[in-house]
Amino acid sequence: MIVLCTDFGLSGPYTGQVKAVLARRAPGVPVIDLFADLPAFAPRLCAYLLAAYALRFEAGDVILAVVDPGVGSARRALIVEADGLWLTGPDNGLFELILRRAGHARCWPIEVSSDQPISATFHGRDVFAPAAARLALGEAPQGPMIAPTRFPDWPDDLPAITYVDHYGNAISGLRAKNLAADAVMEVAGQRIGRAQKFADVPAGGALWYENANGLAEIAVNAGSAAATLGLAPGCPVTLLAERGRPP
Amino acid sequence: MIVLCTDFGLSGPYTGQVKAVLARRAPGVPVIDLFADLPAFAPRLCAYLLAAYALRFEAGDVILAVVDPGVGSARRALIVEADGLWLTGPDNGLFELILRRAGHARCWPIEVSSDQPISATFHGRDVFAPAAARLALGEAPQGPMIAPTRFPDWPDDLPAITYVDHYGNAISGLRAKNLAADAVMEVAGQRIGRAQKFADVPAGGALWYENANGLAEIAVNAGSAAATLGLAPGCPVTLLAERGRPP
Amino acid sequence: MIVLCTDFGLSGPYTGQVKAVLARRAPGVPVIDLFADLPAFAPRLCAYLLAAYALRFEAGDVILAVVDPGVGSARRALIVEADGLWLTGPDNGLFELILRRAGHARCWPIEVSSDQPISATFHGRDVFAPAAARLALGEAPQGPMIAPTRFPDWPDDLPAITYVDHYGNAISGLRAKNLAADAVMEVAGQRIGRAQKFADVPAGGALWYENANGLAEIAVNAGSAAATLGLAPGCPVTLLAERGRPP
Repeated sequence: MIVLCTDFGLSGPYTGQVKAVLARRAPGVPVIDLFADLPAFAPRLCAYLLAAYALRFEAGDVILAVVDPGVGSARRALIVEADGLWLTGPDNGLFELILRRAGHARCWPIEVSSDQPISATFHGRDVFAPAAARLALGEAPQGPMIAPTRFPDWPDDLPAITYVDHYGNAISGLRAKNLAADAVMEVAGQRIGRAQKFADVPAGGALWYENANGLAEIAVNAGSAAATLGLAPGCPVTLLAERGRPP
Repeated sequence: MIVLCTDFGLSGPYTGQVKAVLARRAPGVPVIDLFADLPAFAPRLCAYLLAAYALRFEAGDVILAVVDPGVGSARRALIVEADGLWLTGPDNGLFELILRRAGHARCWPIEVSSDQPISATFHGRDVFAPAAARLALGEAPQGPMIAPTRFPDWPDDLPAITYVDHYGNAISGLRAKNLAADAVMEVAGQRIGRAQKFADVPAGGALWYENANGLAEIAVNAGSAAATLGLAPGCPVTLLAERGRPP
Repeated sequence: MIVLCTDFGLSGPYTGQVKAVLARRAPGVPVIDLFADLPAFAPRLCAYLLAAYALRFEAGDVILAVVDPGVGSARRALIVEADGLWLTGPDNGLFELILRRAGHARCWPIEVSSDQPISATFHGRDVFAPAAARLALGEAPQGPMIAPTRFPDWPDDLPAITYVDHYGNAISGLRAKNLAADAVMEVAGQRIGRAQKFADVPAGGALWYENANGLAEIAVNAGSAAATLGLAPGCPVTLLAERGRPP
């Protein structure tokens, strides 16, 4: 299974061209569109989403992750193996949290064969898709491993909004298991308490809850948290009470 | 064939996670994205759309239909068989018109095995997708049948807009075959006559016509009916002349 | 491989219904969503995009191209073979540039069998999808060839914006290989120079470059050219210097 996590957009020819390469080079391998609208230009926000959503995939699966504002510059192209899961994408921090949380991880540069023309601006199609196809077919990377660029100043959990979905729910970079059961979130000047599910608060009421991938998510029952509260990717979240600590 | 009819949105990780479950559990079964943007919070509007669009599918196909504002509450999860077509989704009226129009129909609750963790907010992935995969593989539901919740006060045809497509065409819940050939629709204060196709009226002119799935649909030739006329899901439609009756 | 290039929209049931027909009639053939948001009502703009993006596909592939404001009127439905690539869609100019640039090309009308009901407004599903499925299965068209409608007054390269992607990048109908290395573009009153990649200009700066499919494309590094410069499909582009000519 090849899983696409990109900022290529829902519209336009980018995802389709990547899938054409995959269908040609890894015929019969299922290709899953997970994210086509990751926050562009923000690999740091994406890194926390990727680490949470990658948990649903298995050893042998391949994640093609491309949020790549530096495409065409000198940044390296990577293949990562983390606890059996394969990933490919640019060396710009996208895999930082996956690397940090993995039991074991290895990393290779992508070797680009000179007989294949590579566009300056679409490495998703010309570099990462061929790499993903090879990994999906079971071809292990050859050659010496490298150390990916690391981002030690990034926190283990990110107190910020990383993604707003089409309902207007705002996903944070905080893992709910690390938060106190009675933690209160302050975001955009408003305080929000925890609930289990939407129906626990009245229509129009705000809540935060552990989403289906373990992240703390802010919602408004039968409404849009993003519109009601004024939330967007990058908005900071403040925790007013954390496990074992007074507010 | 598994057909997805949801309000999960075009963006975001929801449809992708459902498809990952289906690819894992029902490998090789084609999965069709029919609707990802059904009107959220409005199972009643969706019920009329589903009944019209389900007609294009065949005995043995499986429709996964999830518009589920009560997810995580006590509402039941259903499997429905209607004239050989399988459906799965919440027991909130989504299948009311399919049940009412079917020659024969049966209904079961979804048995959730306790060895599988179920999220509070994403039954599409954790409950309905596994059920759809089992049905697509030919596993008939086991155990006693149940009576689904019925909505006898809902009309047989709904005089309201149920969906606005990206051209701005507004689909109603009225089956064109039940309308007089010369029926006039009044919607948002404007009267609209019938035509066969867009080109029958001048550019910018409004028409209603039988759409390719048998529903009466309002359009503006080379324009957006939604923008021009001010239409959105839920807008009431008044019929000024009906078959066999004076206006 | 069947490639979908339409204006059916990302939302709504249109692409899904086409794919259901393809899955039924050409099971196992990969179907690629290349464009679902081609500029509606503008076959001329689409013709230049199609000709550029078709180059990535191969003999035996099938492109289903439907931008068809005249659906249901007397316009013909075509099958085109151009250098081994198959295409199907309406006879309204969509294939003009592919035909003009092909080494050899042939064209047939689509024969619609009278035992199949054809809707007045959705030939994508009822006419073109069945034709694409037959072509993908290797069934060559039968019967006499026809001459498609030609548009000799359309230029070989179109000095206009043909598409704006979700980053806000604006694709023109000009092939970069036909432009001088130092050509300056004037669009919406602003002059824009050439660069190789986004990172060659500072954040917020505009550039034009040869995109990954050979077309001249206008972008703003880490921003939206469409929003910053005010660009939309149809906007004219003026070249201030062309190969071999003074500005």
